[in-house]
Amino acid sequence: MQIDTVLAELRVDRPAVLARAISVVENGRPGFERLLAGCHPRLGRARRIGVTGPPGAGKSTLTHRVAAEYRRRGLTVAIVAVDPTSPFTGGALLGDRIRMEAVSLDPGVFIRSMATRGSLGGLATTTREVCDVLDAAGFDRILIETVGVGQSELDVAKMADTTVLVLVPESGDGIQTLKSGVMEVADIFVVNKADRPGAEKLQQEIEVTLGIRRGNAYRRIRAHHGVSLAKAGGQGSPPPEASAGWEPPVLLAKALDGDGVPSIVEAIERHHQAGEASGELGERRRRRVVERTREVVGRMLQRWVWSESPADRWIGDRVEEMLAGAVSPYEVAADVVTSLREGARL
Amino acid sequence: MQIDTVLAELRVDRPAVLARAISVVENGRPGFERLLAGCHPRLGRARRIGVTGPPGAGKSTLTHRVAAEYRRRGLTVAIVAVDPTSPFTGGALLGDRIRMEAVSLDPGVFIRSMATRGSLGGLATTTREVCDVLDAAGFDRILIETVGVGQSELDVAKMADTTVLVLVPESGDGIQTLKSGVMEVADIFVVNKADRPGAEKLQQEIEVTLGIRRGNAYRRIRAHHGVSLAKAGGQGSPPPEASAGWEPPVLLAKALDGDGVPSIVEAIERHHQAGEASGELGERRRRRVVERTREVVGRMLQRWVWSESPADRWIGDRVEEMLAGAVSPYEVAADVVTSLREGARL
Repeated sequence: MQIDTVLAELRVDRPAVLARAISVVENGRPGFERLLAGCHPRLGRARRIGVTGPPGAGKSTLTHRVAAEYRRRGLTVAIVAVDPTSPFTGGALLGDRIRMEAVSLDPGVFIRSMATRGSLGGLATTTREVCDVLDAAGFDRILIETVGVGQSELDVAKMADTTVLVLVPESGDGIQTLKSGVMEVADIFVVNKADRPGAEKLQQEIEVTLGIRRGNAYRRIRAHHGVSLAKAGGQGSPPPEASAGWEPPVLLAKALDGDGVPSIVEAIERHHQAGEASGELGERRRRRVVERTREVVGRMLQRWVWSESPADRWIGDRVEEMLAGAVSPYEVAADVVTSLREGARL
Repeated sequence: MQIDTVLAELRVDRPAVLARAISVVENGRPGFERLLAGCHPRLGRARRIGVTGPPGAGKSTLTHRVAAEYRRRGLTVAIVAVDPTSPFTGGALLGDRIRMEAVSLDPGVFIRSMATRGSLGGLATTTREVCDVLDAAGFDRILIETVGVGQSELDVAKMADTTVLVLVPESGDGIQTLKSGVMEVADIFVVNKADRPGAEKLQQEIEVTLGIRRGNAYRRIRAHHGVSLAKAGGQGSPPPEASAGWEPPVLLAKALDGDGVPSIVEAIERHHQAGEASGELGERRRRRVVERTREVVGRMLQRWVWSESPADRWIGDRVEEMLAGAVSPYEVAADVVTSLREGARL
């Protein structure tokens, strides 16, 4: 199927075309950048919601319940499940996935698992581009579920319009186990499996920590992570020093039974409205388009250097010298870059 | 301290200088490439041994026991422990680390934990460069311990001269849980915690799997992963179709008590000798120096584009157009790359 045909037929109700478009993008097949360029004018409809948290927190179940709730509200949903492809699998998630098949039989829900190996520009880049395809196709909501085992998964969560951090009472020793930077990416906290002992204690712990950070320190941390503060207030009456920003709510849920899921969806929608009103979302979009362009420039440069320029030959010509210790890779690299910049030998 | 001074004083018995040199490299501080270039002529003494495996396999304990065994043999050892910095910590490794402090009080052992955030060229690149510093300092053996939770940790293991894969009887459902590519990176298998039920079963399972793959299929897989086959045989008498290659031994161990550790060290040394004899190690060194030069070229290009060229300004000038959907990031990026290549507006 030609790229133009794919673009013309890219719609929510054409899952085969969707799957094809995504796989072109995911694997960087010929024409993938033309496909993405064609998607660009159609972007902006979908709201992107990141769901992250430690393994075993029930993210997959929660994501599917949230999808079902959106369906009840008449909206179409895409789920992008990011698998960090550990070479040593545990397979613990599979149970959840199978259990939630009911959702995947609904034609208004499109589900895609992302492999992470071999992606050209890293996990976050590829995920963003897959979300662009889904956005262009016309989905109302895109749920990005990441198994939070590494920094790159956290980067994926951070690229969303709204990030939901799912924790469970037994997550280690509570929020002390969260490394710095994790609390700050969350727009909404969910304490899942809330019928288990310690759920309310964890909720209070998070609220206290957020309270402590609500002043300048918190604002500084958010700014450091590239999150500017929304002007619109959250629900309830926030303390004075936080009146300029969104107050991340800390919600209790029991995703397996669907308990608390409507409140989560409401919080997501409220966060979106607050972001629109304050200009925060516009700011995120602007940063995203700059970041995207930088990524593509980096990728195109790599392609130029390694596929079209003589850089590899230049390196090959000097391997013996390097092995003999007469010259270092750093000196050879500097020569290569100088030659590339000068364009003299191109 | 000046880079030249660091280089002049870089020695096994100067831990403060070592720590300084590593932190310059790890954080890409000014002069780090000059430092690495200065290390280059002094490379080649150290043997690099990767230790990987699933969480909980006892890699840290094993690594420290192997270090102690090398010390008994009068060799100096550096340990590089790669922490994948999950934003959601479990902290399970800490116990092992504390328990093994005895080794860290030995001045012939240098231990360094690697953070992975903020590294310029990715985990594998930075780890390799840190190993270069340790090699140049004169360590006889470098043990690289990676917590095997992701592809990048596996990449780290693959860069070693010898890779030890540590498994335990309770590793999921045995070797079925290992994703493709994992078996193939291992030069030596260790079934740790071998007093637990299922250890010998796992050992046999691995041996059977290796046996199945010993023919062309296995050779093809190894070749695909850039591992050419050593000409010298392993221990025992390998089946005819494998006589051209190293036979990965499958060893039982109980690292906590040190049981089986001398055999592991002997296997590592034997693997090294086989690799030297067959030319395999020379081949790995050649590939490594090319790979290194490519990485440095990539890094220098990025630095040029984003710090010295007007690329960021060109992108900034067209943000409004992109937000309006009039032009896509892919078209803008292509224009930027064309301008960079032409050098016209530099």
